[in-house]
Amino acid sequence: MMTVEQTAVLAREASYALVALPHEKRNAALLSMAELLWERREDIFAANRGDMARAREESLAAPLLARLLMDEKKLRGVTDGLRALSGLPDPLGRTLLARELAPGLRLYRVSCPIGVLGVVFESRPDALVQIASLALKSGNAALLKGGREALGTNRALMEVMDEAARRVSIPQGWAALLETRDDVSAMLSLDTYIDLLIPRGSNAFVRYIMDHTHIPVMGHAEGLCHVYVDKLADTATALKVTVDAKTQAYAVCNAAETLLVHQAAAPAFLPLMDKAMREKGVLLRGDERTRALISCEPATEADWGTEYLDAVLSVRVVDSLEEAVAHINRYGSHHTDAIVTEDREAARRFISRVDSAGVYVNCSTRFADGFRYGFGAEVGIATGKLHARGPVGLEGLCTYKYILLGEGQTVEETMTGAVKYTHRDLTEDCPLS
Amino acid sequence: MMTVEQTAVLAREASYALVALPHEKRNAALLSMAELLWERREDIFAANRGDMARAREESLAAPLLARLLMDEKKLRGVTDGLRALSGLPDPLGRTLLARELAPGLRLYRVSCPIGVLGVVFESRPDALVQIASLALKSGNAALLKGGREALGTNRALMEVMDEAARRVSIPQGWAALLETRDDVSAMLSLDTYIDLLIPRGSNAFVRYIMDHTHIPVMGHAEGLCHVYVDKLADTATALKVTVDAKTQAYAVCNAAETLLVHQAAAPAFLPLMDKAMREKGVLLRGDERTRALISCEPATEADWGTEYLDAVLSVRVVDSLEEAVAHINRYGSHHTDAIVTEDREAARRFISRVDSAGVYVNCSTRFADGFRYGFGAEVGIATGKLHARGPVGLEGLCTYKYILLGEGQTVEETMTGAVKYTHRDLTEDCPLS
Repeated sequence: MMTVEQTAVLAREASYALVALPHEKRNAALLSMAELLWERREDIFAANRGDMARAREESLAAPLLARLLMDEKKLRGVTDGLRALSGLPDPLGRTLLARELAPGLRLYRVSCPIGVLGVVFESRPDALVQIASLALKSGNAALLKGGREALGTNRALMEVMDEAARRVSIPQGWAALLETRDDVSAMLSLDTYIDLLIPRGSNAFVRYIMDHTHIPVMGHAEGLCHVYVDKLADTATALKVTVDAKTQAYAVCNAAETLLVHQAAAPAFLPLMDKAMREKGVLLRGDERTRALISCEPATEADWGTEYLDAVLSVRVVDSLEEAVAHINRYGSHHTDAIVTEDREAARRFISRVDSAGVYVNCSTRFADGFRYGFGAEVGIATGKLHARGPVGLEGLCTYKYILLGEGQTVEETMTGAVKYTHRDLTEDCPLS
Repeated sequence: MMTVEQTAVLAREASYALVALPHEKRNAALLSMAELLWERREDIFAANRGDMARAREESLAAPLLARLLMDEKKLRGVTDGLRALSGLPDPLGRTLLARELAPGLRLYRVSCPIGVLGVVFESRPDALVQIASLALKSGNAALLKGGREALGTNRALMEVMDEAARRVSIPQGWAALLETRDDVSAMLSLDTYIDLLIPRGSNAFVRYIMDHTHIPVMGHAEGLCHVYVDKLADTATALKVTVDAKTQAYAVCNAAETLLVHQAAAPAFLPLMDKAMREKGVLLRGDERTRALISCEPATEADWGTEYLDAVLSVRVVDSLEEAVAHINRYGSHHTDAIVTEDREAARRFISRVDSAGVYVNCSTRFADGFRYGFGAEVGIATGKLHARGPVGLEGLCTYKYILLGEGQTVEETMTGAVKYTHRDLTEDCPLS
């Protein structure tokens, strides 16, 4: 049994080998995994039955049990996902910038893996395969910690994936399963070996991780999303978008938690909205001006900062678009916020001023998702502002290097004038990537 | 006198106004600054004479005094820089991705400011103008803390820049000067208002900042750069590159500190290198195999991890390119490392495996610089792997948002099939940015 540090050292070494693997090899591994996972499905289901039995003994809630289950349908989804991922273009070796600095001296910015990822995720065993495969496709090694409840299933999945990877000579240590909370704590201090942490879970959990590590953290945080119905909103569109954003699913980060309504739109819109929400069983909590128009519970200051993740919606009437924007920037989580308006200038102001990863016009916040964006897959949704923002797919797991190809040029020669800067953009790819 | 928190709150508010300023307005401010700084040059020089006198009393070393000096020539450089910056393209509102998700539902990834920056920099008053202007051009508000020695000059510069900004109605609080170490400490806890810290200075200082804040940090760290002379290196090129990388300047982060030489190249190359370095007054510290070929002081394990920033070079003979890469990844600072070789395959292996922001072939590490890359200006060189890597110019001070423009589409409609995903890439710019 290796310590977490030994596992991380091995992952670091593996990362240096992964970076040199051609795209075909990484894809071959994904296809090999898809095949072997299906072949060994009975082992996986048996392990999952063990996890499910323990979870029932511990009286896990029904939605959690549903997430924990691994059956033929879910495994088929997993293997389909692996095949789809193998079909996506290589995120590595892409020339992002090409420039002649001086004659014979060419600069390229080329995408490359980040290195070693540490990902902590919830009790959904399909998440293990998804994250491990995204890491492999993007040339990163990964330390993976899933939910305690899924440990048996995760072990079975990891064993099969590891064997499939060995069959096509993927370097040992490309991915490893961490099993305990102590393992996660140990990981937090290994900034020499781990380049990026991706904690998925509650805000409190993400904050805990940030507070206890020097490793950069990409927060897959929860979301407090807003729908703002502007003065010049189309009422039918406003209704459609609000209902979808609130009710299409409740326990998801891209559901709306607060509805803001321009005072001019409120008298016509709020009663219709009230009726629609009642039909869906959604409880409303309104400010005073809302309660003057419809009957609902009063909203308190705390409501504006609460991510209900439930059939509850707070509602506030605002005087202007500017007030709506200020509310969103103050109470929101910088995840995804939508305006409903027919006024292009209002849409433009909202887009420019709302400080969120996603700013939507006349559509539901529920579209904030890597699959829906066409990224193929996502490792999470980042609400920070640096590196990747919003749904994070393969691209967010890559960084870049500057490659400078010369013929012996020196900076001294640029001082004497023997070498002269041209700074001419090129359209070619880096010939050595 | 405002507290640091009040200053940060004002900067946050300013950031929401800055984001809405058109490019012309931001450029007008830069040109207004260039003009007023020159007009008020005598006030600035007078303030600088005060700083210089105090610095001489405190017996500051000559190179530091030279950096602290603000004279006509340096101020001309500063105002030229402002004018050049105003001529660069707008880094904001650039459409980085455009995709039809479904008919009438279009996704755009558009560049936008990060928000509020906190920058701590050294005692070079021209750095204040450079950083404040980069922040303004990229629509960010900034809290700026310069070196204690330059305080008088910085106050004078800031006052003039602020007046110039007011003249073209830039929102109050766009930039503010912090004056003491306590101010910096106070800034570290203001993660509600500050989005990114950029500490320039020693590794120890950057590490201190990272250890005491929850705000993301973009490290402008020092550099431990390598030149590796491969088996198939051209000797004249190797000599030229090594001499420039070590001696073109000493106290800079992109100078070479360690030379690695393939054993097959060492007998011919090392004596020539030894002679060239002696002529430049560079002290060599070699491993045993180096000392078997040339006479120099012995290098210890500590040398491989030392950034001399001086006329000292450690030298090691390696058995292979792989050994050179392993040495660089182990002891280096992931800044910039160069190979000298005529072998394209060797160059390719080196590029793929060296884990640094800059990987160079047959040219000097001294090229690692925002101006030399043609970025116009730089706020620093990042040696982390996330967000911006290498020289950080305007682009590194921006993030992006996803903008989704619809006609009332809901996720529920994608479930029923009423809305069908197309995921078709578009070539248009976002019409509302």
